Amino acid sequence: MPQLYHHPLDPQSRFVRLALAEYGVEPELIEEKVFERRRDFLLLDPAGETPVLVTDHDFTVPGATVIAEYLDESLGETLGENRLLPETPEARVEVRRLVNWFAQKFYGEVSNWLVTEKVYKRFMPAEAGGGAPDMDVVRAARANIRYHLRYIGYLTAQRNWLAGDRLSYADLAAAAHISVADFLGDVPWDEDETAKLWYARVKSRKSFRALLADRVPGISPPPVYADLDF
Amino acid sequence: MPQLYHHPLDPQSRFVRLALAEYGVEPELIEEKVFERRRDFLLLDPAGETPVLVTDHDFTVPGATVIAEYLDESLGETLGENRLLPETPEARVEVRRLVNWFAQKFYGEVSNWLVTEKVYKRFMPAEAGGGAPDMDVVRAARANIRYHLRYIGYLTAQRNWLAGDRLSYADLAAAAHISVADFLGDVPWDEDETAKLWYARVKSRKSFRALLADRVPGISPPPVYADLDF
Repeated sequence: MPQLYHHPLDPQSRFVRLALAEYGVEPELIEEKVFERRRDFLLLDPAGETPVLVTDHDFTVPGATVIAEYLDESLGETLGENRLLPETPEARVEVRRLVNWFAQKFYGEVSNWLVTEKVYKRFMPAEAGGGAPDMDVVRAARANIRYHLRYIGYLTAQRNWLAGDRLSYADLAAAAHISVADFLGDVPWDEDETAKLWYARVKSRKSFRALLADRVPGISPPPVYADLDF
Repeated sequence: MPQLYHHPLDPQSRFVRLALAEYGVEPELIEEKVFERRRDFLLLDPAGETPVLVTDHDFTVPGATVIAEYLDESLGETLGENRLLPETPEARVEVRRLVNWFAQKFYGEVSNWLVTEKVYKRFMPAEAGGGAPDMDVVRAARANIRYHLRYIGYLTAQRNWLAGDRLSYADLAAAAHISVADFLGDVPWDEDETAKLWYARVKSRKSFRALLADRVPGISPPPVYADLDF
């Protein structure tokens, strides 16, 4: 069984968990608190970031986008025309563009701020920067998420899914990042009805179930989080 | 002729320029000052970041890693056994891991800080954050670059090139980022002899020549920058 070093509220880990579930692969989940900078984890991945996949053959694949490419190359064809990284050059560029949008822009402006302030800082010692969340940062993340929701709404109003006619890595990446903000009660769902409908469709997939069951000590998600008909 | 929207001192643009030169593709270079947030550029790429490639068929490919994957898929095989993204799954993971290391870690801890403080702020209006460089940030970047040089030295002491036996995207990405710091006089070359020897080899490639000829108004690189025998 492959192992996935992850954190339940790390959006990049969630993206890979969704992808693995779409491929029908169930990994052993190993929770990693990256801020502890555990020596054995740093030996596995010098970058010290989740997620890291270790395959059945003890092959280490670090980082969400590297894992996504690896899974496409090893398992992509098994999904036939539902391949998560589609075949044509144009479609591949659009999927990768949007995966990067969420892995970098959304992460840098919204989800990393929310998780660091509201989750990681709770478990970090004070001398490592732990403590109460900086509400200025949280407010900035809440302001930034609005334009990302409108962008999702804009794209999905023209397309069946985020990057085109079919579900792709773009949907899984976007939904993974949104889901973390949703767990923390920070998604203004009134902002964009089209984005909300898209998210309801991704959230209803079987691959999403394990994420909706995630719990973190001391943090309760709002009822809307696991509600498929929110 | 394809067009590349770039900035001469943007390390991610330089990575793509090196890759294109290795493939024998000479793009029309269009300088883009991303901080101006030019409307036509944002229409081309909503993320508003360099580099962006526009192919002969008017197809837009935004972002260095997306461009690198696109070039590998369309031109990779033409390089035969010198393919920049090699064939085996293990080698592909290692190359992508290191490309991301420089695109994210090195960029986030060194090259983006140096370019923003020492180059972009010089051309930005004061109300947009322009002005003199924040020397605390520059000093932090200079401290951080040391451990990256040692990591390059550690890897290239065991391997012929950064990610394995042959030159790959990993070398081009790393050298592109290092070259920007070198242009600004911020690489402590005494720190690691093995890293220096590796950089001298990459820098001697024909694909590197255009980068060594780059000039930016008001900023002169130190003599070591274009010296192949530094």
